[in-house]
Amino acid sequence: MENSDVDLDGDLAELRVKLGDRLITERAAVAPFERDSSRTVFAGEALALVLAESAEDVSNALAWANTRGIPVSVRGAGTGLVGGATAYDRGLIVSLERMNAILEISPRERLATVQPGVVTADLDEAAHAHGLFFPPDPASVRTCTVGGNIATNAGGLRCVAHGVTSDWIAALTVVLADGRVMRTGARTRKNVVGYDLTRLFVGSEGTLGVIVEATVRLESLPPGAPVTFWAEFDGLAGAGGAVTEIVGSSSRPEVLELMDALTVQTIEAVFPSGMRIPRGALLVGQTVGPDAAAHADAILAICRAHGASDAAIAANDDLVEARRKSNPALSARGLKIACDVGVPVSRLAEMFAGVAEISRQHGIEVASVAHAGDGNLHCKVAAPNTPTGIAAADALIDDITRLALTLDGTITGEHGIGSVKQHELAWQLDAVALDVQREIKRALDPRGILSPGRAI
Amino acid sequence: MENSDVDLDGDLAELRVKLGDRLITERAAVAPFERDSSRTVFAGEALALVLAESAEDVSNALAWANTRGIPVSVRGAGTGLVGGATAYDRGLIVSLERMNAILEISPRERLATVQPGVVTADLDEAAHAHGLFFPPDPASVRTCTVGGNIATNAGGLRCVAHGVTSDWIAALTVVLADGRVMRTGARTRKNVVGYDLTRLFVGSEGTLGVIVEATVRLESLPPGAPVTFWAEFDGLAGAGGAVTEIVGSSSRPEVLELMDALTVQTIEAVFPSGMRIPRGALLVGQTVGPDAAAHADAILAICRAHGASDAAIAANDDLVEARRKSNPALSARGLKIACDVGVPVSRLAEMFAGVAEISRQHGIEVASVAHAGDGNLHCKVAAPNTPTGIAAADALIDDITRLALTLDGTITGEHGIGSVKQHELAWQLDAVALDVQREIKRALDPRGILSPGRAI
Ligand SMILES: Cc1cc2nc3c(=O)[nH]c(=O)nc-3n(C[C@H](O)[C@H](O)[C@H](O)COP(=O)(O)OP(=O)(O)OC[C@H]3O[C@@H](n4cnc5c(N)ncnc54)[C@H](O)[C@@H]3O)c2cc1C
Ligand SMILES: Cc1cc2nc3c(=O)[nH]c(=O)nc-3n(C[C@H](O)[C@H](O)[C@H](O)COP(=O)(O)OP(=O)(O)OC[C@H]3O[C@@H](n4cnc5c(N)ncnc54)[C@H](O)[C@@H]3O)c2cc1C
Repeated sequence: MENSDVDLDGDLAELRVKLGDRLITERAAVAPFERDSSRTVFAGEALALVLAESAEDVSNALAWANTRGIPVSVRGAGTGLVGGATAYDRGLIVSLERMNAILEISPRERLATVQPGVVTADLDEAAHAHGLFFPPDPASVRTCTVGGNIATNAGGLRCVAHGVTSDWIAALTVVLADGRVMRTGARTRKNVVGYDLTRLFVGSEGTLGVIVEATVRLESLPPGAPVTFWAEFDGLAGAGGAVTEIVGSSSRPEVLELMDALTVQTIEAVFPSGMRIPRGALLVGQTVGPDAAAHADAILAICRAHGASDAAIAANDDLVEARRKSNPALSARGLKIACDVGVPVSRLAEMFAGVAEISRQHGIEVASVAHAGDGNLHCKVAAPNTPTGIAAADALIDDITRLALTLDGTITGEHGIGSVKQHELAWQLDAVALDVQREIKRALDPRGILSPGRAI
Repeated sequence: MENSDVDLDGDLAELRVKLGDRLITERAAVAPFERDSSRTVFAGEALALVLAESAEDVSNALAWANTRGIPVSVRGAGTGLVGGATAYDRGLIVSLERMNAILEISPRERLATVQPGVVTADLDEAAHAHGLFFPPDPASVRTCTVGGNIATNAGGLRCVAHGVTSDWIAALTVVLADGRVMRTGARTRKNVVGYDLTRLFVGSEGTLGVIVEATVRLESLPPGAPVTFWAEFDGLAGAGGAVTEIVGSSSRPEVLELMDALTVQTIEAVFPSGMRIPRGALLVGQTVGPDAAAHADAILAICRAHGASDAAIAANDDLVEARRKSNPALSARGLKIACDVGVPVSRLAEMFAGVAEISRQHGIEVASVAHAGDGNLHCKVAAPNTPTGIAAADALIDDITRLALTLDGTITGEHGIGSVKQHELAWQLDAVALDVQREIKRALDPRGILSPGRAI
């Protein structure tokens, strides 16, 4: 980034002509946009913040930065956990939070077109009014944006039934690094016109372009209320076996979450709701639709066959709500440093057991909770807020990540690479794949201004 | 392609050292690999054919061609309908048909790893032995290859329930234009490590790399036998309304196909099975799983509410089998020239009606059949096998394609662009998207040897 010799004050004046008061330079107003929700990630002091209100604003901002080689961070709501949206020193921040309109909901086509800054839960609720819903539901759904979900290919609790964000994106409008604007995709269910540019931008973490509009698919709301079920296991092998059989059965649930004893105990301590602490692990899930109760019964039978010590249908959905609070509960108890890995569902029990062993070896507490139906495990690691404390937690997380890879897994199931997981990339990708990613980046962003040094 | 001044005989000798008798140069042996199943597409006379038996063979062949700037056509089974696999004059053909091993089926992980030349139906049947199946089922399933399905992102009859090929691909091994070998993806359900290279190669029609191995997802076979249902409609509006409501309901079928009267009449004439010719259109579908009968009943109720003149559950699956024969039946009656477009499901009735009107305007017979649940329409156009006859059919198909676009549709839902649809690309994609495709192509295949001039 050779921006040091640019007369930036004069140059910013040029950008101000285009953006007016959507260009912010006062430190106090810029600073809140410099960090995301990751910890220990260095954030720079940005030159300026663009509160974009249109694709044209974004295009003007990027064209300006591109000409000058100024690094740009792209920001939805800043709930990201891997330092993807943090600011660069003397960089530009492009925030999409003002572009939060729902432009269209088409119940007939089950499509919605939205600006990127719309909060995910707002889209979901707007769809409800038409008997539809937007399936991707990260636990951050009430604050994160659809643009951020697309850029990270976010997951969530309902993935076991509905897949990830990628599966729900029909078309995008993207502003490229040099300010050019492009449409990808189509409104049809099937479309094989040229390369799948839509899916190239999904998960690209702000490094290839800025998403300024998205046409997303909606799903019909299932009739009736969901049925919540739970099963306690003394050991992990039984829980893992049950999960593997459940996702292979014709009673696939809408939600299937596995929590270790420490997680359950901590949630119950921080947000008491009468949960019983299991010896091994607690499986919690939901079925939906006209046969929800029958499916839940079939799932409970599978759990019992795999040695569940107790298993039943719950009177309400408190358990799922409690699960959604695991993140704040664990953080409140000092289990702060998050890690996201994935393994094939059938290896989940080995993964849980391995994490417990790594925790013992390091002498550091770790709580594990999984989107079990997807084999997607989140560990939260205890660490005092000191450099050595954090370094110790990071070393432990590296061991967890390597374990996931030995179990045919992935270094990140849903949070992404950002800046935090950069050093792990070569553990999973071969040298050619790493090169190809860089070649694509270079083709689309030759000056490397968009989120440089991240994701790939 | 500046290959004319190369001493090709000497150079081929070099390649023969690496490939032995997997390199074929005899005209009679090469010729059958020079065409796919499209019509009117010019195929060149290739220099040589590589019957690859390993990734290394493919790598050696591509590295050889890349150094010399020799165009390469990539071929699975040659069932493609858009001239994607046809040979280049003085080009090299890389055939994957010998790489047809199923390397692994993992029932626990519901994954299979295959070589690209495995016939799709063979994979599906091998999966059946484990209570699993491979959902993508193009009508060519008994002859086409999994590699070809991936390269075209093939669809089929079951897409309405299970999505397209793209949705079933977990990981790929790809040989790049210069011979480098790369892995993409992971064995996990969720994986957000860098760009989605897997989906960049899915649908890339042999222009970015050669797929030499694929790890695909399998689905559990639903219990019980499928239930086949049918509904006759006097008009198209009712059929379209019924389809729109069915796919939005909780009784989504496994198969949902719509045929116009000419299609039904022609199938019945060529392969008589007692089908009744509808006045407007015939909807045929299947439901599966434990509640198949109840779902079929719910679907029939929707059909009747939308004015079906008759609708019932069938005694067997003859109607679906008859539907699968539409292509040979129509061809046998001179309705030979195929066209593949897509529209949003809710516009399907307009599309059928518009095609009928275009047929009248041109004075040329057109039969329409749709993967209705996806809004994916195939028209077959009558044409004498003369240049003017074919030109007239092409002009009509251009009108059909433009109509699909005015209905928010796509110029190809599942067959791809190949060489046949090249001229339509700019009708759908904006100039920036066209440029970006070319920039990606240039990044991965700078000498442009892989399927040059196709797909993008
Ligand atoms: C309590 C909590 C729970 C969470 N639970 C989950 C969960 O269950 N599943 C899950 O997947 N994640 C979860 N996350 C992580 C986070 O919420 C997701 O990654 C979310 O998708 C980020 O959205 P955002 O709008 O906050 O994006 P940001 O944090 O602002 O940005 C994330 C990344 O996307 C890029 N970006 C944002 N908007 C755009 C755009 N319009 N165009 C291009 N690039 C863009 C940024 O540059 C950055 O790289 C959780 C986070 C928290 C704090
Ligand atoms: C009777 C009939 C019915 C059909 N029905 C359908 C249908 O229902 N749905 C549908 O989608 N299609 C259908 N098709 C079209 C065709 O079968 C599909 O496109 C199929 O996926 C092609 O597979 P193939 O192995 O024959 O590929 P080929 O025809 O050999 O090649 C197709 C394209 O893929 C590329 N390719 C092939 N293998 C590889 C590889 N290993 N690596 C990289 N590139 C490769 C080729 O270069 C070419 O561009 C039908 C065709 C016929 C003749």
